[in-house]
Amino acid sequence: MVHDTMILCQLQTLVKEDPGLAQSYVGDLVRQAAADGADMVCLPEMFACPYESKNFPPRAEEKGGPTWQFLSSLAAECGIYLSAGSVPEKEVLQTESGQEKILIYNTAYVFDREGKQIAKHRKVHLFDIDVTGGQSFRESDTLTPGDHFTVFETEFGLMGLCICFDIRFVETLRLMALKGARMVLVPAAFNMTTGPAHWELNLRSQAMLNQLYIAATSDARDMTASYHAWGHSLLADPWGAVVSQLDEREGRLMTKVDLSRVEEIRRQLPILSARRTDLYELKEK
Amino acid sequence: MVHDTMILCQLQTLVKEDPGLAQSYVGDLVRQAAADGADMVCLPEMFACPYESKNFPPRAEEKGGPTWQFLSSLAAECGIYLSAGSVPEKEVLQTESGQEKILIYNTAYVFDREGKQIAKHRKVHLFDIDVTGGQSFRESDTLTPGDHFTVFETEFGLMGLCICFDIRFVETLRLMALKGARMVLVPAAFNMTTGPAHWELNLRSQAMLNQLYIAATSDARDMTASYHAWGHSLLADPWGAVVSQLDEREGRLMTKVDLSRVEEIRRQLPILSARRTDLYELKEK
Repeated sequence: MVHDTMILCQLQTLVKEDPGLAQSYVGDLVRQAAADGADMVCLPEMFACPYESKNFPPRAEEKGGPTWQFLSSLAAECGIYLSAGSVPEKEVLQTESGQEKILIYNTAYVFDREGKQIAKHRKVHLFDIDVTGGQSFRESDTLTPGDHFTVFETEFGLMGLCICFDIRFVETLRLMALKGARMVLVPAAFNMTTGPAHWELNLRSQAMLNQLYIAATSDARDMTASYHAWGHSLLADPWGAVVSQLDEREGRLMTKVDLSRVEEIRRQLPILSARRTDLYELKEK
Repeated sequence: MVHDTMILCQLQTLVKEDPGLAQSYVGDLVRQAAADGADMVCLPEMFACPYESKNFPPRAEEKGGPTWQFLSSLAAECGIYLSAGSVPEKEVLQTESGQEKILIYNTAYVFDREGKQIAKHRKVHLFDIDVTGGQSFRESDTLTPGDHFTVFETEFGLMGLCICFDIRFVETLRLMALKGARMVLVPAAFNMTTGPAHWELNLRSQAMLNQLYIAATSDARDMTASYHAWGHSLLADPWGAVVSQLDEREGRLMTKVDLSRVEEIRRQLPILSARRTDLYELKEK
């Protein structure tokens, strides 16, 4: 049976540079959220790795590594779904000539109430931007993009998962909606140029256009860090309204979500079912 | 040579029920806009037909009919591009058994400075909605949907054209953007339920997501009419910002548009060029 009511907790956390400190800090917040009734807890993009291209390789771990183990154990201990933000992931490949080739990804894991990994998304669209007088960043300097979109089953129905820049692409959200996602989780870290211009607009509109919930969880802003996150973690509903939103500071959003609104709004205002599939097709290759 | 600077005039007009009155009213406003320097003038959806399903069949004319002739002549007389809102269009088909079959469309024509028709769009997605405690409408009771998307060449580069409900579908705008549209014209008439919730959000976001201008021109609100249009005609830029916007009353937006911002923003923040065409494909059938 699919449940319609979920207590969602989005944690807008600071990035602690020290891995041990990051684990105790995040661990305490997740445990508190669970104690307060959360069914699902969400962390931000790169929640334990200062957001700079040069930091991704040295801090990357393989799937199943110490950070993964910590997150899995934390979900099981708390008995919650844990959308564990994103972390730098390392993949070691053997080339044909016997050499090791190391690839680094921006990867989001989701664990279920037993600590089992039920989703893994590697950021598909890497963030390369050069705004005149604004933000410049090139993730592709050190990262490899993912090669698939990600949905996963939960007791609350099908959920989608993508990372930050992925939400700027209509194909990302549309493909997840067409697969049946009722909510999409977005660990993210918009910046001080694109945040005020596009953060809320992107999230509200993609929720409206695809008639699903979007829960976007950002890092808190730290003006002593090199990357200044916009913050403003928010939950957008399938009507395109902001259900709840933080400011830029450390904090959490605890929201009782009624997922039946997805089906109700799709009935009243048919968008997905009124697509002209006789005229166009969006498909994965 | 493609020009980057265009004077755009969006006319938020009242619907005059009498066809003769409608022509003199609209004609005067278009002539004034041209006299004031407009390169292109835009009219709203069903600008001369009160927006009710029952009105579409009796007021529909075939392409080349009196209203079409009036609009073509007006564009030529004024030496402007005229995006002539939309009108009910009649198509008479001969069935195999020799019977006449009449189809009615919600159709937008565009005429060039010589009065030549350079674009014709039949609304692809018909507006069927039933919001609890809000708006109900079924265009499909009397209308047939179009079967293609519409772009056209101008001295300002490639432009797109769609009608109202079409903009709720990400495929509509994406397909026009991928064809190279720098601006999309949208004759429209959102209502008092979806207007406050979704009008600006739809237009700003589709402009941002596809990095092009969207000029959406609504009918003015007339509380004595059966359909109350939201109004708020607006121009959204490729950064997702509102360049200019009206309120609900009769009025016009005269805007000097810098179309080179399209290419500039696409360079700074690559969305269209960063699409993962190796992973997904959106195509027309």
